[in-house]
This record gives sequence, C-alpha cells and structure tokens, in this order.
Amino acid sequence: MFERIYNGVGVYTNNCLNGLTSVSLSGQLIARATLDQEKMQLGLSFSDSDVSSFTPLVVLELADDTKAEAITWLLNRIRDKQQNGGAELLVNQLLFPAQDDQKPNPNVFVVGSTLQRLLNGAEDVGLFKEFQDGTMRGFTYANRESFKDFNGDGEAFLSDAECQYIIKHELDTLRAKNEEHVPGYPKLKLYPGKSVVRRLQSKGVLIQYFPLHNKEDLKRLSFSWYKKFKLSFQPLEDIRHYFGEGLALYFGFLEYFTFALVPMAFIGIPYYLFDWEDYDKYVLFSVFNLVWSTVFLEVWKRCSAMLAYGWGTLSRKKAFEEPRAGFHGALGFNPVTGREEPIYPSSKRQLRIYLVSVPFVLLCLYLSFYVMMVYFDMEFWAISIYHENPNIATSILLFVPSIIYAVVIEIMNLLYRYAAEFLTAWENHRLESSFQNHLVLKVLVFNFVNCFASLFYIAFVMQDMMLLRQSLATLLITSQILNQVMEAFLPYWLQRRRNKKVHKRMRRLMGDKELPLLEQVQLETEMNTYLGTFDDYLEQFLLFGYVSLFSCVYPLAAVLVVLNNITEIYSDAFKMCHVFKRPFSEPAANIGVWQLAFETMSIIAVVTNCALIGLSPQVKAYFPESDTQLILIVVAIEHVLLAFKFILAFVIPDVPKHIQVKLAKLEFDSLEALKKRKILEATETGNTWNK
Amino acid sequence: MFERIYNGVGVYTNNCLNGLTSVSLSGQLIARATLDQEKMQLGLSFSDSDVSSFTPLVVLELADDTKAEAITWLLNRIRDKQQNGGAELLVNQLLFPAQDDQKPNPNVFVVGSTLQRLLNGAEDVGLFKEFQDGTMRGFTYANRESFKDFNGDGEAFLSDAECQYIIKHELDTLRAKNEEHVPGYPKLKLYPGKSVVRRLQSKGVLIQYFPLHNKEDLKRLSFSWYKKFKLSFQPLEDIRHYFGEGLALYFGFLEYFTFALVPMAFIGIPYYLFDWEDYDKYVLFSVFNLVWSTVFLEVWKRCSAMLAYGWGTLSRKKAFEEPRAGFHGALGFNPVTGREEPIYPSSKRQLRIYLVSVPFVLLCLYLSFYVMMVYFDMEFWAISIYHENPNIATSILLFVPSIIYAVVIEIMNLLYRYAAEFLTAWENHRLESSFQNHLVLKVLVFNFVNCFASLFYIAFVMQDMMLLRQSLATLLITSQILNQVMEAFLPYWLQRRRNKKVHKRMRRLMGDKELPLLEQVQLETEMNTYLGTFDDYLEQFLLFGYVSLFSCVYPLAAVLVVLNNITEIYSDAFKMCHVFKRPFSEPAANIGVWQLAFETMSIIAVVTNCALIGLSPQVKAYFPESDTQLILIVVAIEHVLLAFKFILAFVIPDVPKHIQVKLAKLEFDSLEALKKRKILEATETGNTWNK
Repeated sequence: MFERIYNGVGVYTNNCLNGLTSVSLSGQLIARATLDQEKMQLGLSFSDSDVSSFTPLVVLELADDTKAEAITWLLNRIRDKQQNGGAELLVNQLLFPAQDDQKPNPNVFVVGSTLQRLLNGAEDVGLFKEFQDGTMRGFTYANRESFKDFNGDGEAFLSDAECQYIIKHELDTLRAKNEEHVPGYPKLKLYPGKSVVRRLQSKGVLIQYFPLHNKEDLKRLSFSWYKKFKLSFQPLEDIRHYFGEGLALYFGFLEYFTFALVPMAFIGIPYYLFDWEDYDKYVLFSVFNLVWSTVFLEVWKRCSAMLAYGWGTLSRKKAFEEPRAGFHGALGFNPVTGREEPIYPSSKRQLRIYLVSVPFVLLCLYLSFYVMMVYFDMEFWAISIYHENPNIATSILLFVPSIIYAVVIEIMNLLYRYAAEFLTAWENHRLESSFQNHLVLKVLVFNFVNCFASLFYIAFVMQDMMLLRQSLATLLITSQILNQVMEAFLPYWLQRRRNKKVHKRMRRLMGDKELPLLEQVQLETEMNTYLGTFDDYLEQFLLFGYVSLFSCVYPLAAVLVVLNNITEIYSDAFKMCHVFKRPFSEPAANIGVWQLAFETMSIIAVVTNCALIGLSPQVKAYFPESDTQLILIVVAIEHVLLAFKFILAFVIPDVPKHIQVKLAKLEFDSLEALKKRKILEATETGNTWNK
Repeated sequence: MFERIYNGVGVYTNNCLNGLTSVSLSGQLIARATLDQEKMQLGLSFSDSDVSSFTPLVVLELADDTKAEAITWLLNRIRDKQQNGGAELLVNQLLFPAQDDQKPNPNVFVVGSTLQRLLNGAEDVGLFKEFQDGTMRGFTYANRESFKDFNGDGEAFLSDAECQYIIKHELDTLRAKNEEHVPGYPKLKLYPGKSVVRRLQSKGVLIQYFPLHNKEDLKRLSFSWYKKFKLSFQPLEDIRHYFGEGLALYFGFLEYFTFALVPMAFIGIPYYLFDWEDYDKYVLFSVFNLVWSTVFLEVWKRCSAMLAYGWGTLSRKKAFEEPRAGFHGALGFNPVTGREEPIYPSSKRQLRIYLVSVPFVLLCLYLSFYVMMVYFDMEFWAISIYHENPNIATSILLFVPSIIYAVVIEIMNLLYRYAAEFLTAWENHRLESSFQNHLVLKVLVFNFVNCFASLFYIAFVMQDMMLLRQSLATLLITSQILNQVMEAFLPYWLQRRRNKKVHKRMRRLMGDKELPLLEQVQLETEMNTYLGTFDDYLEQFLLFGYVSLFSCVYPLAAVLVVLNNITEIYSDAFKMCHVFKRPFSEPAANIGVWQLAFETMSIIAVVTNCALIGLSPQVKAYFPESDTQLILIVVAIEHVLLAFKFILAFVIPDVPKHIQVKLAKLEFDSLEALKKRKILEATETGNTWNK
C-alpha cells in the first residue's frame, strides 16, 4: 500500500495512493536556525522539490488500523491550499526502517509549515507582538516590518510554542466541505463546517496530536530553570517561549505566592521557636494575615495583567470556541453560526445536573463527613490508649489516625476527581470552557470540604486548639509528601522504565544507526499527557486555605507552605520538562476561575479568623460578664473587615496605570486609523457628497 | 457689521464679513417629514442655492459680546468640509425683525445637517441599528440598504434624538487645526487637536448649546405618556426616540421598580389594616423582602440588557472620551493620543481628594449626626409635653420634630450637593466619567447617612420599633411631597411666569406676525437645563433604602413608595416635556453606577433585617436562657443569606440567553467576514505564497 524509501538514515514518505510524490528526509530533529547547515552535513535527498524538507513541529498519531483512503484524504486536506479549504501545512509519514514483532504504530505523522504560512497563521490566530514603539499590537503580515523583533524574513520572530499553537489552530479549524462521511468510514458522518480533527479524535481514529520537544531549547530551559540550585527568579520569559502563556502564568503565580508567603513565614517562626501562646500575639498575626491575603490577591491581578500585556494575551480577543470533541446530540442548526451541528437541549443538561450530579456531590460530601467522624473515633481511641499507657510507641500512635486520615483524604480526592470528570462529561457540555467550569466547581467544593471539614470541626465544635495545630501540621506535611511523590517522582520512575524499553526496541530495530527523530517521536508518543494546570492550581488553593483559614492558631503553616513550594517549583519544572509530553501552548490573560476561588477563600478566611479570635481565652477575658457583648463586637469587626476588603478590592485598579495607558493608546490609534480611512473613502467618492 | 435681510416673516443671516452668502428662511420649526410641503406654503426665499434650507436641530448661543471674527471663524469651521477638518454641518444665525430695549441676545444660531452628512455621522458615532435578519449591527453607510428601516434615501431612518446626538458629537470633535488662539481673543489659547467647542464653553464664549424640541412629536409623546390617565406601560420606545437611551432607561427602571413593588405593597396592606403585631409575620415578610430585593436587581440587569440590545447600545463601543470642559493644567503631551493638552498630575489630585474632600465629607457627616441628635432632643421634648398634657394639639406636636427633621434633611442634602459639585470640580478630574463617579460617591455617602442615620439609631440604639415606624412614615411622606414640589411644580410655575414674559416680549417685537421658530428658540433658551438623571436615581435609591432596610417593621413603606412612584412617573414625564430644555440623547447600555449602589443597599438590607428580626420579642422568646445562642444563630443565618445572595447573583446570567446568542452571532459573523477578506487578499497576492 505504501511505498517506502530507505536512505539509510531514516525515512519519511508521502502516501502514494493518489499519485502524490514521495520524499525522504533524515530522521533528525532539526532546530530551525541550524536547518541549512545540518541539511548539508546529513546529505538529505528529496525526490520532489515542491514539498521541501521542514522542521517537524507537531506529531499526529492515527490508529494503526486506520483505512488507507481516510489517511490519504486527511493528508490531502491538510496539504490543500487555504482557498480550497485546506490547512496548507506540510505533513509526512514517519517510517521505520525495519519491522518487528512489537512493531510500532506505522501511522505516525509529523506536521510542519513554511515560514510564510506560519506568519499568516499568526495573523489568523490574532497573535499580539511588540511593535516598534514598545506597545503590543495585533500582528498583521502586511505590517510585519514594523514589529520589533522582525528581522530579515522573520525566521526567529515566532517562538516554537507559537508555531505549534498556530499549527494546532489550523488543524482544529480544518473543516469538512461537502464530504458526508470520512472516506472508508461510512459511519463516521461529517457535515459542512464540522472540524475534521475533532470528529476523528472523538471517534478514536486520531489517537493524539502533540507538539514535539525541541531538545536544545529544552536543555537550555531546564538548565536555567531548575538545574542550578541557587535562589533566583524563574526564567518566566523562557518558560513562556517554550510552554506558552498559560503555564508561564502558573509558574509566575507559584513564584509570586511563595515570595508573598516569606514575610508570613518569618513572622511565624518565632511563634514556634519561643512557644508563644499569648493570644494577643495571635490576634496581631491574624490581622496581618487578613490584610496580607487581600492585598496579595489584588496585587497579583496587577502583576498578571503586566505579564499578560507583555506576552500579548491581555488585549487579544478570544477565538470563537468550537464544540468539545465529546459533545453529541441530534443534528440541528446552530443559532449563532447557522451551521448544521449537534444540538443538545440545555433543559436536558439542567436535568442531568440537578437530578444526578448535585445529589451525587451531596452524597460524596456526606461520605466525606462520615469518614471524618470515623477519624475522630480513631483519634479518641488513640488518645485513650496513650493515656492508659504513655510511652514512645503510644505517643507515635497518636499521629497514626491523622496520617491515615490524610492518606484517605488524598485517595478520596483522587477517586472523586475521576467521578467528577465522568459526570461532567456525561452532562454533555457544548463548550470546553463550560465543561471546565462545571468540573472545577464540583472538584473545588468536594476538596474544600474534604480537606477542611475536620479542621473546622476541631476548631469550632471541639474548640481544641492544640489538636487543631497538630492536625494542621500532619495534614500539611502528609499531603505535601504524597503530592510530590504522586505528581513527579512516581510518573518519572514509570517514564524511565518505559524509556529504557523504547530505547532497547529502537536499538534492536535499527542496530547502531543514529535515528534521533524517530527515537524521540517514539519516546514522546508514549509519554503521559499533561492534563493542564488544574491539579497544580488546586494544590496551591488548598495550601492557601491552610495558611489563611487557621493561621492565627498555627503561624508555622506559612513556613511549611514556603518549604513545600520551593520543592514544588523544582518538581513541577522537572515534570514539565521530562515526565510529560510537551503540552500545546495555551494563551491565557489571567489565572481565570482560580482568581475567584482564591478570593472566595480569603473571604471565608476573614470569617474563620474573626471567630477563632473570638474563641481565644485572652479575648474572652476582656468580657468576663457576658458573651453577648463579645460576640456582637466580633461580628461587628468581621463586618467592618469584610466591607474594608470589598472596598479595597474595588479601589485598587486591576490593571496598572502604565498598562492602562498603553491599552488606551492602542484603542485610540485604531479609532484614528478608522476615521482617517473613512474620510479618505468619503473624499474618493466625493461627488455623492455635494448633491 | 451684520447684513440683515427682512422678508417679513423671520430672518436668518450668514455672517457676511468674509463674503459668505446670506440666506433668509422662515422662522418656522419644520418637522422633517413635512419639510417640502411647508416650504411651498410659506414661500421661503433663498439668496443662495448652495446652502439650502434645513431643519434646525440644535441651538448654539454665544455670549452677546462675542467678537465678530470669532463668530466668522467658528461658523466657517462648522461649515467646512470634513477633509479640511470641519464639521460639514449647516448653521445659520437667527435674527429678529425688530430691536427692543430688552433686546434678546443676537448671537443665537441654529445648526442642522444634510441627510447624507447625518448618515455618515451615524457611522462615525458607531450607531447600532436593526439589520434585516433582526440582529443589531453597527450602521455603515455602504450597507445602508441592508438595514431594516432604511427606505428610499433614509429620511425617517434616524430619530430626531439620534440626529441631534450626531450633531453634538460632530461639534464636540471639531478640533483646532493650527490656530494658536481663537480669532479676536488672543488669550483664548488653542493647540492642535483641542476641541473648539469645549474651549469656547469653558471660557464662557459659548453660553450653551442644546437640541430643539419637536413640537409635533412632543405633543404625540406627552399624550401617550402622561396625558391619558389609565394604567398602562410607559411608551419606552417613544421616550427613547425623543430623549435617547439614557433617559428611557431611567423611566424603564422607574416603571420596573414600581411594578416590582406592587406585590410587596399588597402583602404590606393587611399588616397595616389588621394591625398585625406578631413578629413571626414580620419575619416572613422580611425573608420575602430579602429574596425579592436580590431577584429584583438581577432580573433588572437582564431587562436592561434586553432594552439596551434592542436600542443598539449594548454592543456599541464607547467613544474615546474628551477631557471635560473645566479641566485645566500645564500644557504637556497626552501619553495616549500624543497630542498637546493640559496635564494635571494625579498626585496633586489625590492630595486634594484626601486632604480636603475626605475631611470635608467627614465633617459634613459629623454635622449630620449632630443635627440628628438635636432632632432626638426635640422628639423627647415633644413627647414629654404630650405626656404632661395629652390633647389634639400636643398629639399633632408629636409629628412636628419629624417633619422639621425631614425638611432639614432635604435642605442639607441640597446644600451638600452644591458643595460636593464644587469640590469635585476643584479636584480637577480629566474625564467627565471620573468627575461623575467622584460626585456620585460623595453625594451617596452623605445622603445615605443623612437619611438613614436617625432610623438606624432608633432601631438599634433606642430599639423603639413604634418610633421607628412613625419616623419612617413621616420621613417618607414629607420627602415625597417636598421632592415633587421641588422637582416639578416649582420649576413649572417659574417656567410659566418666564414663558408669559417671553411671549409678551415677542408679541411686542413682532406684532401679530406668527414667528413660531423665533419664539420657540427664545422660550427654550431661557428654560432650565436638565442636569441629568442623577437626582432622579438618587431619589429612587433612597426610596429603595426605606423599603428594603426597615420593611420588616413597617410593611406599609412599599405601599407609600408605589403611590409616590405613580405620581413620580407623571411629574417626571411632565418636567421632561415642559419644564426643562430638551437634553441631548445619552447612549447608555445600563444604569451604570446605580446598579452597584442598589446592590450595595440590598446587602446592607440583609444585615439590617437579620438584626431587626433578632431584636424582635417573639424571636427572643425562643431563646429565653441565653442571648448568645440567639445572636450566633442570627449571625449564622445572616452569613448564609449573604452567601446565597452572592451565589444567586453569580448564577443568574446578566444577559438573557437569546441576547447572548445574538451577540455571539454578530461576533461570529464579523470574524468570518474578516477571515474571508484575508483569504481573498491572500489569493490576490498568491504569487508570494508559493515561494
């Protein structure tokens, strides 16, 4: 079926069914800048000069039993010119020199693009780039020379991540024309305007597509990021260049949060060292904490606006959102696009949400409470044993229930996460963003209750501050250790085992020939997929909860979180570079729903801290006669603090002044340009004016 | 200096200094639709066919000692073609046939425009109009035929208010070219890009400019609005057509608020009739009130989005804001526009705000508290007299302090308003919107404290619910009567006196000739200027406060507010039509800062109502042993209600689904159009693609 050409180094081929030309190319990952030199050295041969060699940027993996006509059709559509509705990209099959029992999937393709096409694509996706005058402007090919870093033919103008994002966008928006189904698959229905890639993906024909790592850049990035053990800021610009804005913002937030916690940690240390038990000191700490958490979140908004402006994502318009890959329903007409597409009545979705998902979540919350009560029974049992026979063994036993509970909480969170994903997918949301919001809400509520319920119970029902402190410490330390192991080290260990296997197989397949691209694609195809920043933000959210909710009884929490986050930066950086497939860049202007989640947590923190202060014996001592007066005063202070918080959030502008000026300038210039154009047009058609 | 041509009916003239042609035109207000017929009937004569007769839409009044060269220059700039930087409008001087001792200001001009210019202006200001497919789209002259109501040459396409708004916009954006100063006024400096009209206005050369009433439309509007005394919705569409979106939204809100109060009023009546003193009934009422106030505001957001969509203001972009007329500072370069303009350091403004305005506001608040304490002294004195000698006279005396206090409050509010305006102007804000925000904030805080402090004092310090009810009733009724008198009837009475005088003078000037336009312009020039919806919204805000804050002790408040608002609609409609100058249309997409103000009030209402319920004897009876438990439960309920309120506000979408779909469709279509255009351009320059 497929013609294969061996040139001794590594082979690409075109699908030849419909007379397309075949080319062979070295299986070498070629950094774009050094493309030409390496081409010389390796002696590449091309059987056709029309489809020239290219830097492979994205890997497409189709199921290994995909029908040949479907492959031909797909490759044709990807290569076809834009005016014919194609993506006008370069794509070639990756072929292996020999077959094997454990033969790798032959249907692996690499996609690349000409520079010209990428620059046009950059305009399509609405990329913002730095202009000559230092402002950020929407890139247009016509004005390319006016952009700051555009030199020569624009070789280094787009970062790797941007190129891959553009290719992803072009592949995603490759739409069916008049095909009624995918060739070879009469059941894989299509309709004009349907995204081809989404349909192939949802039916399992397209297994995955992902961007390739760039080994040289990766080496440079990982060196500057986590290989030098010295105190320095993270190379956010490099991270953004390599992984895109979404991930860079996460690491920016992680760094900002950690630095913001340092003063809290410094103030917290003497409380622990000198065993300060005076509650008036705790009151001080708590007030500081309240102001800190509000200012921290407000200032972050400004920082993130600054970062996003510099990265061109702040003023960039969101692209029109496609339905998710898994969305299904009866064919109908979309009222917005007028296209035929699946329609799923939102009333049905509401029914599923309110009759199934909400009860399920409530049930899980009940279960979580039940587990909590079992934990307290265990706790009392351990204490009673310790009191009967106090020795080292029983004093260690005191910590056992907390540790078990922490492990159980982690497991429950994990299981619930899968259930929530399943349920949210079953709710059949049309848009990925709506899916994400419902998933985040479900997971957040459960995680909040699961992680903090026992602490609230100890604090306000049992009113046992010693136990609260001990539980906090155990929870914090256990969940930190568990997290780092589950997140980075376990996947790394699995990955290394897999790598060795792949390496061995490749050696067997190709003897001692050097086939870096083939091997790299094989390795990366089998790497785990990074599922987005969700879990990373969730972890920070819970840590923020530990610090802000109960800080006034356990000031050391900040110290623990700082220590955790320092290792977290390294392990997260490591897992991005070596454990997971490279993710597609995600243009983000802010941390999205997480800003709201953190703000909600900081409001709950005001209530909790006020209540904890009200419960403290020192404060109670000021009102020996009646609790009533104490409670009224605490409630009044709480209301004032909340009002102050809202006013502060309202008064601090979300975008720093100098960014506001730049945004206004952009808007003003485009208005002026529009006006000039209109006057020009009016002058040209001046004869109609004087009628 | 001026050549005047009398043609026996009424005369316009051009300024002839620099050889401009003179025309004469009947002083008749001509409805555009009937222009041609009336032209025939009245036998108009034109000395020049180039500047043809036109419907006068806007009146410009310059100071009567304005230098002739300044007038010539201004009229030239207004008439000049757009490509020369002019406004390309039609303008003529209004002349009086005879002189008099009490001679009217001769420097009154009427401005009009050709239809063509207005349609082009509609595109400039970004007017949204209904498209053939029922969606709202930005009007463009090129696509004019595709808009729904565009028939023939587009005669009736733009409403009067829209035409006047367009003329205002064109006058406002008439910019200085290379003039260094206004001709004849070496001290009236100009710089390129400065708005000419703003400069003339701030220096008192331009006294005012305002849109003319259209007598026929006004008659029709006032008939359908307030002249038929039957229960019906207000003609919001007609109001919008005549007065613009800002005012129509106010009347829409007023109507919506009144209707929303009707169920509250119905529930409130039996409380009063049957003297229900059971607090459990009040608790019910209060809970109902809380849910009502949240839902009411959320639903209004949706209503206003629907109205604004239909009026084309929802998706319309805000025009770039000019500096206010009164803004001053040293000349510098605006970082946004790059133009030379006055710059005032914001640090100086901050100093003025924090060192002068804030202390002043605090002082006023203190004064307000002081007056309140005096009122309570008076109150106690009246009660003691009544107790000494209870008869009819002394029982009437019981109400006197409240009435005096209500009057004093109104006077203080009025005086404070002037002070706040002066202070905010002195703060020298660059933008009108920023000026307005600071003014609203100042006035709101003071009005809130001034109107409600005594009620809070009675409710929570004195805990005298009888007195609270009585004070509420007195405050409500007194302020209502005062408001209606001050707002509508007093100005109307003054206006009528003035009208008679003008009428008499005109009779003397012109004998028994009919000069409707001349007389109309004279009358309207001397009418009061409507200062915007600020006071009207403020009144509704305070009424909302009376209803929502203390409803659970005085359910009749809703009834009183409904009664007030029914008369308010009539008196407001009347004052707009007959007491004030016609205001320029104000494109508004929502009620702006007032939505926030009402929402804040409804949050305060949750706190107040919970506290009032906690104070009620019936609720207290449930917790005979300890107040502590009661307070904790009330506080817990309050927190739950507040959380519920926030969640409700978050869950209810601000824009109804079908409007969202239409907005998305608009965005989608423009994206598609852009894409098509790009592919077309790419095809045209196809040769660069295959390189």
